[in-house]
Amino acid sequence: MRDFSTDHRWLSINTATVRKSRGIEQPLTTIIETCAERGIRAISPWRDQVAAAGLPVISKLVKTHGLELSGYCRGGMFPAVNAAGRQAARDDNRRAVNEACELNAACLVLVVGGLPGALAGQAAHKDLALSRSQVHDGVAELLEYAKLNRMPLAIEPLHPMYAADRACINTMEQALDLCDALDPEKSGALGVAVDVYHVWWDPKLEQQINRAGQKRLMAFHVCDWLTPTTDLLNDRGMMGDGVIDIPKIRGWVENAGFAGYSEVEIFSAGNWWQRDAAEVLEICIARHRSAV
Amino acid sequence: MRDFSTDHRWLSINTATVRKSRGIEQPLTTIIETCAERGIRAISPWRDQVAAAGLPVISKLVKTHGLELSGYCRGGMFPAVNAAGRQAARDDNRRAVNEACELNAACLVLVVGGLPGALAGQAAHKDLALSRSQVHDGVAELLEYAKLNRMPLAIEPLHPMYAADRACINTMEQALDLCDALDPEKSGALGVAVDVYHVWWDPKLEQQINRAGQKRLMAFHVCDWLTPTTDLLNDRGMMGDGVIDIPKIRGWVENAGFAGYSEVEIFSAGNWWQRDAAEVLEICIARHRSAV
Repeated sequence: MRDFSTDHRWLSINTATVRKSRGIEQPLTTIIETCAERGIRAISPWRDQVAAAGLPVISKLVKTHGLELSGYCRGGMFPAVNAAGRQAARDDNRRAVNEACELNAACLVLVVGGLPGALAGQAAHKDLALSRSQVHDGVAELLEYAKLNRMPLAIEPLHPMYAADRACINTMEQALDLCDALDPEKSGALGVAVDVYHVWWDPKLEQQINRAGQKRLMAFHVCDWLTPTTDLLNDRGMMGDGVIDIPKIRGWVENAGFAGYSEVEIFSAGNWWQRDAAEVLEICIARHRSAV
Repeated sequence: MRDFSTDHRWLSINTATVRKSRGIEQPLTTIIETCAERGIRAISPWRDQVAAAGLPVISKLVKTHGLELSGYCRGGMFPAVNAAGRQAARDDNRRAVNEACELNAACLVLVVGGLPGALAGQAAHKDLALSRSQVHDGVAELLEYAKLNRMPLAIEPLHPMYAADRACINTMEQALDLCDALDPEKSGALGVAVDVYHVWWDPKLEQQINRAGQKRLMAFHVCDWLTPTTDLLNDRGMMGDGVIDIPKIRGWVENAGFAGYSEVEIFSAGNWWQRDAAEVLEICIARHRSAV
């Protein structure tokens, strides 16, 4: 297991972590500068942030600073109520692949979607199996395009509390079953993003990380699970402030062959997004050394 | 699959559902009377409610009305930081078995516990595997006592969002693995309580319900998953108001041999606990017919 205690060579910042500084939305250009000033070598930006700044601007800025992208957030959201909706998802996902290529991302992260309409509070149906079938078909189709463009796809199993509205892939085992169905040869084109927040509870986690192996382990995301957790989406904790044994899980993924960045992804409306972004990054660096 | 549309013969009320009426805590005696008046034939009371009214009072009242108990809530909370804590849990669980026997409950439901201290916001450690090992040992020991008293134990896998503070048994597969380890002969002394709120998202749910079979399926709890869900504990929905395909899951458990009560268990600080308990029960009856 790599020693993280003396530097932050393997720290990546998911830009949602400092999406806001003192409660105010920050442009991605500012976020990148604040990261680069601290010797942070990798980021994982969100599409809406890139779009707001302009892809060419971000592409150039990333190159200027020699930043790597540990991932690109995000594609997915495949299920839809009709063919037009699925076509729109397909087109949008291809654009996401193109953007990820332009930014030279390590992978495009897929949050696959749940029941259509549920995110807006009005699920069109309750057939989770149907959504899972549409996810299968959507990933299969996108995979062809992604392979042509040499952009790996990383399915992110989300915590079961997001099954309805964000992702109906909810365990590593389920994600890997899908990978095996669509990419049995383990080509390196399809794998998983392991976010400790989503999977820490899983009694089969170590087993499934070993099953994944180096070819399927494409990203490793960290934050912490707070007790109590006061919001299902935006109350994630800083590494070390919660109950997840992060070093143990990092040991498992590294033992299975993962050697990439440890990406900090914290959504925190009440705490971290209210602080100064520079302070948040300093604490990310410190906790990367002490608690990851 | 049984037809629930014309009566509420198989409706049970978990008394937490009407713990409050118009925001005010209700005595269990009142809850029982309000249920009996509506021809509800079964309840599942909580230990604290029974203790507040007095076990002999409740025992007599239940007999007077000819009520059945679809379960008794609850034993468990096995993990502890030291031997004294585990001894206290053991003693308390034996009392729970005794009470369940006095009330002639169908089973004692076990919410097994998570990381010691996490429920109070101060987890003593982060070793989920240790807690799971203590749960194994705690259930094993209690099972001997429960067998002597002929009280079946029903392990309730809780949603993974409760892994830290309430239960580190989080899937049907995990619960059934424990059942198979401790009761390989499927004696009828150990099984599971299937609450749709906790397990609806699980891609292996149907498979594991079939694995459980009649001998292990001891209780079936219903409510609904709302989108959005605004609180991790107390924002459960009334059947039909959320995204869970309850009839499909009931079909699975009945197909696997379950023929008991469908127990409504709704924790709802902002909505149902603010309404009049009689109104809530009327709606439970209506939804039992139309949405379960």
